[in-house]
Amino acid sequence: MPFVNIKITNEGVTSEKKAEVIAGVTRLLQQVLGKNPATTVVIIEEVPTDNWGIGGESVTARRKRGA
Amino acid sequence: MPFVNIKITNEGVTSEKKAEVIAGVTRLLQQVLGKNPATTVVIIEEVPTDNWGIGGESVTARRKRGA
Amino acid sequence: MPFVNIKITNEGVTSEKKAEVIAGVTRLLQQVLGKNPATTVVIIEEVPTDNWGIGGESVTARRKRGA
Amino acid sequence: MPFVNIKITNEGVTSEKKAEVIAGVTRLLQQVLGKNPATTVVIIEEVPTDNWGIGGESVTARRKRGA
Amino acid sequence: MPFVNIKITNEGVTSEKKAEVIAGVTRLLQQVLGKNPATTVVIIEEVPTDNWGIGGESVTARRKRGA
Amino acid sequence: MPFVNIKITNEGVTSEKKAEVIAGVTRLLQQVLGKNPATTVVIIEEVPTDNWGIGGESVTARRKRGA
Repeated sequence: MPFVNIKITNEGVTSEKKAEVIAGVTRLLQQVLGKNPATTVVIIEEVPTDNWGIGGESVTARRKRGA
Repeated sequence: MPFVNIKITNEGVTSEKKAEVIAGVTRLLQQVLGKNPATTVVIIEEVPTDNWGIGGESVTARRKRGA
Repeated sequence: MPFVNIKITNEGVTSEKKAEVIAGVTRLLQQVLGKNPATTVVIIEEVPTDNWGIGGESVTARRKRGA
Repeated sequence: MPFVNIKITNEGVTSEKKAEVIAGVTRLLQQVLGKNPATTVVIIEEVPTDNWGIGGESVTARRKRGA
Repeated sequence: MPFVNIKITNEGVTSEKKAEVIAGVTRLLQQVLGKNPATTVVIIEEVPTDNWGIGGESVTARRKRGA
Repeated sequence: MPFVNIKITNEGVTSEKKAEVIAGVTRLLQQVLGKNPATTVVIIEEVPTDNWGIGGESVTARRKRGA
């Protein structure tokens, strides 16, 4: 019954990769915590780089200056 | 003053339906918990089916195999 | 399959009231959006009044000055 | 290491304004709580006005009736 | 730089198990999406069973009737 | 009408510091985005260091080894 929310920057992750993440997290919670995979929910949110800040600046700005 | 976040799969819910959900949740919290509707916030987030996983696979994949 | 997160101030809501909220939100999403109640998840988070701000001040401070 | 999630209505906020918000929140948490800006994450989510409810109605509806 | 929020029912998960979940999710996001583990944040939230609803009733109620 | 959620590690932040954060974030969103402070909500969540992971390990573990 766990609920997992994964936020990543929106940079073209494929459906296949998303499916791998969903499968992997679900398996991990089953193996480590004994959680039932049938009711494990995983939601992936893709955030534009303008809207994601770290170190006081946006990821867009960091990428531009090569950080 | 409650804050309600509702996540659903992104499958063409109309503005009218969203308005009904907003009105209904606000009324419920007033009736059950005595919360002031004026400051009750309800946010609906629509998530692509590729990004929503349950049972270890995406909703897209489940739909394809008729689950 | 919806996921609902409800944040309220931590002020002694009983288990019975919480159960009413869970049942009511689940029913609403079934009636309005046709969502399957079996996979509808509702999580209630209770937040201390010191940690909840509105209008630039904490709920604790507002209560003290009778707002 | 704080994580900050800011939800606002989706109404054309510029990248420059978003950058100001990211910088400002990061600085505030450093000044008030002594948090390391290098690991402070700020995520801005822009929500369509149809999906944001307050007072039991959507922001779209409120705007239409001049509220 | 991903941010992962995991909500589980509050039922005595040990620090060791939590550490395994943190390590496992971080490794998965590195392997599948190439994310830098140094800036991957994982937050585990433990929710009382009274506050977690599924199928229209609380987990507390489900456990009581043996569901 | 913005909604701000701030997650920090649970390490004894005083009510006064929390009030400063609430006031500061509310003021910032008014100055930068023109948001109405009366309806700006700020919620602070304090997370145990066992439940907060970064770099693949918990903050508890990092503190122990002096990271």
